[in-house]
Amino acid sequence: MTVTVPLGERSYEVIIEDGILSRAGQHLDLNRKVLIVTDSGVPAAYAQAVAAQAKFPVIVTFPQGEESKNVHTWMTLLDALVEHNFTRTDCVVAVGGGVVGDMSGFAAAAYLRGIDFYNIPTTVLAQVDSSVGGKVAVDYKGYKNLVGAFHQPKRVLIDPQVLSTLPPRQISAGLAEAVKMGLLFDPALFSLFESDDYQDHIPEILFRSVSAKAEVVGQDETESGLRRSLNFGHTVGHGVETVSGYSLLHGECVALGMLPMCSPSVRERLLPVLLRLGLPTSYRGDTEAVIEAMGHDKKRAGGSITLVRCDAVGSLRFETVPFETLAQEMREVLA
Amino acid sequence: MTVTVPLGERSYEVIIEDGILSRAGQHLDLNRKVLIVTDSGVPAAYAQAVAAQAKFPVIVTFPQGEESKNVHTWMTLLDALVEHNFTRTDCVVAVGGGVVGDMSGFAAAAYLRGIDFYNIPTTVLAQVDSSVGGKVAVDYKGYKNLVGAFHQPKRVLIDPQVLSTLPPRQISAGLAEAVKMGLLFDPALFSLFESDDYQDHIPEILFRSVSAKAEVVGQDETESGLRRSLNFGHTVGHGVETVSGYSLLHGECVALGMLPMCSPSVRERLLPVLLRLGLPTSYRGDTEAVIEAMGHDKKRAGGSITLVRCDAVGSLRFETVPFETLAQEMREVLA
Repeated sequence: MTVTVPLGERSYEVIIEDGILSRAGQHLDLNRKVLIVTDSGVPAAYAQAVAAQAKFPVIVTFPQGEESKNVHTWMTLLDALVEHNFTRTDCVVAVGGGVVGDMSGFAAAAYLRGIDFYNIPTTVLAQVDSSVGGKVAVDYKGYKNLVGAFHQPKRVLIDPQVLSTLPPRQISAGLAEAVKMGLLFDPALFSLFESDDYQDHIPEILFRSVSAKAEVVGQDETESGLRRSLNFGHTVGHGVETVSGYSLLHGECVALGMLPMCSPSVRERLLPVLLRLGLPTSYRGDTEAVIEAMGHDKKRAGGSITLVRCDAVGSLRFETVPFETLAQEMREVLA
Repeated sequence: MTVTVPLGERSYEVIIEDGILSRAGQHLDLNRKVLIVTDSGVPAAYAQAVAAQAKFPVIVTFPQGEESKNVHTWMTLLDALVEHNFTRTDCVVAVGGGVVGDMSGFAAAAYLRGIDFYNIPTTVLAQVDSSVGGKVAVDYKGYKNLVGAFHQPKRVLIDPQVLSTLPPRQISAGLAEAVKMGLLFDPALFSLFESDDYQDHIPEILFRSVSAKAEVVGQDETESGLRRSLNFGHTVGHGVETVSGYSLLHGECVALGMLPMCSPSVRERLLPVLLRLGLPTSYRGDTEAVIEAMGHDKKRAGGSITLVRCDAVGSLRFETVPFETLAQEMREVLA
């Protein structure tokens, strides 16, 4: 299955196909210097499979985890590019989850002001969401994705087979972003999660999520309008994520963050979906700390904050409220 | 005088006007948080004049010189943006030469994946060339502009009055880039330098240079085609600059670098122009070291290098040659 992200000259294809990792060379131009970036949590065989298909491969592996997503690790990627004399016609390939994709994408964006970038996401979260759309970044001074760029990949290869080795908790957390896409844009996608056999429909879930994302990105590449809707659940979610010290997974925090943004009727459908996926539905931590962390959220402009609400499945609405209004709402919902 | 850089949605104006620095608030939206970046070589009064017109100004001053143009200084700019809680709707203003513009532009490009950027160049070099076109970057591991972005300013204000305080050597070096634009694109601009009264025509020189640059950038923003012609003189120039340890100014190195790229008839006209400007016309350093440094040039692709030649004033030609051919030519010309 192929989805095209429609961005004029920068349009590209996302190809979803079992086993495509081992055929990457048929779909990507690897006949040049190729920096393959991965982390210690990804089976080493994946990066090696890509390397085996490249003319001049260089593999860089950094420690797994959000802690690695910083300027320092980013510079080690730049160092590798410099050391091996990569030129404007060479490329970077990410083989891993969102951290790998975001950080290697930002290295590709900044090196020589931008060289080719391919993404081969290996987690559900990266496959349904972060690998598509060109948002690349590193964390900075405790703020998520504070420093980065919009740098679209030249192609994205999604191999559903690689998901078989993932822990169930990570799969569920990743699917939270697919639930989000369903809630906002695709009732049929959302409905897949309302049945116990949703795990039999993973390729369809990937395809529908990526298709919705591609359409949004095509309309608003740099997140000045519609694309901001993808922050649905993320304002509260980032706050929870920060306060939890990343003991909760990103998708788990998004799940928690979506609930208060839904109308009662949508929430009634969302709750059993989250429970089916084993995602959290209530928060037992420090509410004031979450509010404080949300106050640092980068989407904040002046004293107000723009929220994304879902009043009916397959729809969304922006609402700008004073920050204090959101804080009060959180005190009621999270407490 | 106003020049429009034609880039669709990202089009912007370059306004050339005596005294415009003190009226910046009439031309830029400074009714927000404004990070004003300058260096120790720029009269502090310039940044202060801009600050006086801003709602919430923050001035950052770093030490003058190419040595400051690195990831470390760039991070101090990011730190200032974080510390003062700049949001997506705030902005950065560069007040200084090329180093200030390139580095603060890259901070604006990367912070939150890109916030508004204005440039008020205060050197000839920055006014005729680097402030226009959106190339922003820092040096890395000894390589010039290795890490950066294409991030167009929202507006550029050029105040010819500020040039009156510059040392003559720096003015001449800056004008070398204007000579380059004349050689490649505008015979009338080049001719201005063939008369001793060229100093009476500085505003026209600025206008003609910026106009030519704007047209090139409009045709090829990301330097995949025509814009590469602006590297005329820079391949050899960067090599000389590196080997000189930056004791020669950028424009002086470009002057030296242009000579071997000209046909004999053009060189015959260029030589007296360089002499009139007090620019160097011969190199007494280590030729092999320059060749070695050129070998690191980032425009190099594989074993070949693309040069820009000028066979007649107002024209240019690309030529891709094996690196060794260029090296041999340099041994003959520079020796």
